[in-house]
Amino acid sequence: MQIAILGGTGAIGEGLALRWARDTDHDVFVGSRDAERARESAVAYANMLKERGVEESINGFENVVAAEKADVILLSVPPYYIADTIESITDTISDAVLVSPAVGFDRDADGFHYDPPPAGSVTAHAAKAAPDCVPVVGTFHNLPAARLADLDADLGLDTPVVADDRAAKRTVLDLVNEIAGLRGVDVGPIANAPEAEGLVPLLLNITENTGLDDVGVAFT
Amino acid sequence: MQIAILGGTGAIGEGLALRWARDTDHDVFVGSRDAERARESAVAYANMLKERGVEESINGFENVVAAEKADVILLSVPPYYIADTIESITDTISDAVLVSPAVGFDRDADGFHYDPPPAGSVTAHAAKAAPDCVPVVGTFHNLPAARLADLDADLGLDTPVVADDRAAKRTVLDLVNEIAGLRGVDVGPIANAPEAEGLVPLLLNITENTGLDDVGVAFT
Repeated sequence: MQIAILGGTGAIGEGLALRWARDTDHDVFVGSRDAERARESAVAYANMLKERGVEESINGFENVVAAEKADVILLSVPPYYIADTIESITDTISDAVLVSPAVGFDRDADGFHYDPPPAGSVTAHAAKAAPDCVPVVGTFHNLPAARLADLDADLGLDTPVVADDRAAKRTVLDLVNEIAGLRGVDVGPIANAPEAEGLVPLLLNITENTGLDDVGVAFT
Repeated sequence: MQIAILGGTGAIGEGLALRWARDTDHDVFVGSRDAERARESAVAYANMLKERGVEESINGFENVVAAEKADVILLSVPPYYIADTIESITDTISDAVLVSPAVGFDRDADGFHYDPPPAGSVTAHAAKAAPDCVPVVGTFHNLPAARLADLDADLGLDTPVVADDRAAKRTVLDLVNEIAGLRGVDVGPIANAPEAEGLVPLLLNITENTGLDDVGVAFT
């Protein structure tokens, strides 16, 4: 399978690129609005794997080129870029599955609060922006980015998965579960995304109030 | 310390009564609107402990009597009874801490969704109903009731704790942490309660879609 990680040069893009490359046989394409930055990140990721004795080629492309090559496209961009990002690739993704890991939240004096777009969740916002034939799956919201990118860290983490399209959900659940130490947990259709995305401000409030840093969730 | 569990005859009331009685030196009072039911439950809980070789007296009282005796009062009642329950005990609780474990959610064809009262969360709703001098702490929302009440079950679970009053929060965090296998996690003031309470519909959607039953959360 071909996986494109748009916005793959930062945040959870790095960790997922490294771990899919290390733990699976899928091809990983790093996408960025800047093709040169995408290539540099791809080379850096491949070198990080090589240092650990893993020989995997990771390629970098401008977002549209990466998306065109992919069966599954991760939209690892801020929530306010999602609609534009989908718009920019819309002509080339008729057979692909889109994956939305972004969350809308705000911060005030009390802490972090869930603040979804008018569609009700970022996943629903992405689904509205996507062509009708292209399924959207929401997941990876609650992963601690630094631990994910630290290949020496054992994860032992869960992440909820929402989608209206059952085949697309199955595809993405499999991709989650192929990463060592990560488990995707089906929480139903996109209408159920708010509570899944709402884990993120909860985790940020935990860090803020306890000092527990880069914390994730396990459902046990 | 004296702990009253109002609505202590069902749901998480049973598990917390059993575990506080077993794991701590605090006195546990089971409260119910029906004094006879409270006494029957208290006897049943004490017998369950006795079968395990734990000799602890647990007493049952009508809610007002239980509350009057207590330093900490758990409002283990449905969200729509909370205001009335607080109203019924308001004259006798000037020195107590109230603990709110209830959550408002609804269910439609897609699944379970967080549905807080107008105050923004059930914890905030309880705080509005309480006298100004009586602090309210929100916690225990996300505990799996059957596992909690099964004294053979190891928990290994976390529960977020919110409160505006720091001393009351510390008191309740200690009470949570004294239960073996349970950890209270400070997530800030009551303004941050929605995401903590929102864990409950998320966990219900997990059960609905995966069959993982009576599931809890660990922040790792």
